[in-house]
Order: sequence, then C-alpha cells, then structure tokens
Amino acid sequence: MKTITRLGLAATLIAIGSSAMAAPKPFEAVEYRKGIFKAVKWNFGPMGDMVKGKTEFNADDFARRAGNLAALSKMPLEGFMPGTYERSTSALPVIEDAWDTFAKTMGDFETNSAALAEAAKGGDMNAIRPAFMKVAQTCKACHDKFKD
Amino acid sequence: MKTITRLGLAATLIAIGSSAMAAPKPFEAVEYRKGIFKAVKWNFGPMGDMVKGKTEFNADDFARRAGNLAALSKMPLEGFMPGTYERSTSALPVIEDAWDTFAKTMGDFETNSAALAEAAKGGDMNAIRPAFMKVAQTCKACHDKFKD
Repeated sequence: MKTITRLGLAATLIAIGSSAMAAPKPFEAVEYRKGIFKAVKWNFGPMGDMVKGKTEFNADDFARRAGNLAALSKMPLEGFMPGTYERSTSALPVIEDAWDTFAKTMGDFETNSAALAEAAKGGDMNAIRPAFMKVAQTCKACHDKFKD
Repeated sequence: MKTITRLGLAATLIAIGSSAMAAPKPFEAVEYRKGIFKAVKWNFGPMGDMVKGKTEFNADDFARRAGNLAALSKMPLEGFMPGTYERSTSALPVIEDAWDTFAKTMGDFETNSAALAEAAKGGDMNAIRPAFMKVAQTCKACHDKFKD
C-alpha cells in the first residue's frame, strides 16, 4: 500500500462528507439512535414472526438476525445525550432524571440480546423462544417508562 | 422462567409494536438502510478525527467504534431491495442494474471494516491509518457510483 499522506486522507474524507466532524449535535444524536432502533426493529420483527410461527423458522436467518441484534444493542445508549429530548424524538426527558435506571435497562437489553444470539446458534426454537421473550420484555419495560 | 404461552408472547409483541410484521415495505427498507448509514457515520466521523489528529487518539474508543463499524458494515445490503430507489433516498436506481458490482462493493466495505477492527485492537495508529484509509476509499468508491 502506498504511503497515505495527511492531505490525501483529508481529501478523501472531504469527498465522503466526513471532514467536519466535531461533537455530535442534538439532532445527530437523535437521528443516530432512531437509526439504530430502526435496524433493531428490522431484525426483531422477522424473528418475532418465526417465534410466533407466523413464518417458517429458518435457523440460519434467525441466528444472523440475532447476531445483528446483539451488535446493535450495544449502540443506542451513547445517543441519549443531554439536551436531546425536545425535538423529533419519542424518548422522554425523564431519561435524564433517571439515567442510572435507564442505563441499566439498556444494559439488560444488551445482556438479553447477547443471550438470544447465543441461544440462536443452537437452532433450537425451544431454547430460542424464552430468550427471545426476555428481549421482548426488556424492550417493553423500557418503552413503558421512557418512550412517549 | 415461566412457560411462555403463544398468547402471552403475542400480547407482548403487540405492546412493543411488532405484531404485524410482514415483508418490509419499500419505505421501511429505505429507513432501515439510512439508519445503518447514520450509525456508520456516527462512528466513522470520530475515528476520522483521531486518524487526522484532529482529536486525541483514544485507542479503546477507536477500537470500540471500529468494532461497531464492522458489525454495521454487514447490515445495509439487505435494505437495498428492488423498488426502493424512487423516494426519500439518495441511492441510485443503477444499483438494481449493476447489482453484482454493488454487492461486491458492499462486500469490500465489510471486509475492509473487519480489517480495520482487527487493526484497531492493536492500538497502533501506524497500523490503523492505512486500514482506516481503505475503508474510506471503499465508502467513496461506492458513493461515486451509486449515490446521488
């Protein structure tokens, strides 16, 4: 590989629109976390259909989605920055007041998603179903308290 | 854990808004892939700042972001579904015509992001910089051809 100059790097970053990154602005944090949750739903929905027997269980697809979910579950917390509860969000300002509870709930989401990904590797719906259910309950618990 | 009835599961899924999942609609696919790319940018921007020396290099934070990027890089391709290039997207319809090239480019994104995550584990900017640059070039190559 050729030596990459600082100038060359800067030019490429400008070209892909990443030249002026600084601390994220509130709307960027909102868009970020909403993006993550859209990806969560994209994966969680079809998993739920398989768990419910609404669509045929495909063990490989389920495990792939569960792996994606486990990776995604680590990401949203950092997007819940101070001052990001006023506009274009259904996240409630109480998140700031009850930060420790919120962070713990998001930690549960991460832990339970990792357990689901692990269960999914076995391809046995009898092990997957309760693990999936635990994630679903974590989602609901958080939405009940912290989502409009 | 208590036995989970189908009915109990259905009730929980309804409560969290996942009861009626079917094949994704075009706008859902667009929102999904845009969400992924927002999360990509969220991580890539601060990494670029560190590579450029604009912010101080934090090896742990860099490695965490590179791990997130590697996970995210696997996700967008499935969102580029047929019939999702008309509205609310800067993805060009040529993606459908040149699908194999597009899929290969996204595969490069995944491969190069995995290599960056691996390099980042070492915490050595001299190894990280060229790996980061390869990812940046992959982004640019794809945007040049397939993004408005």
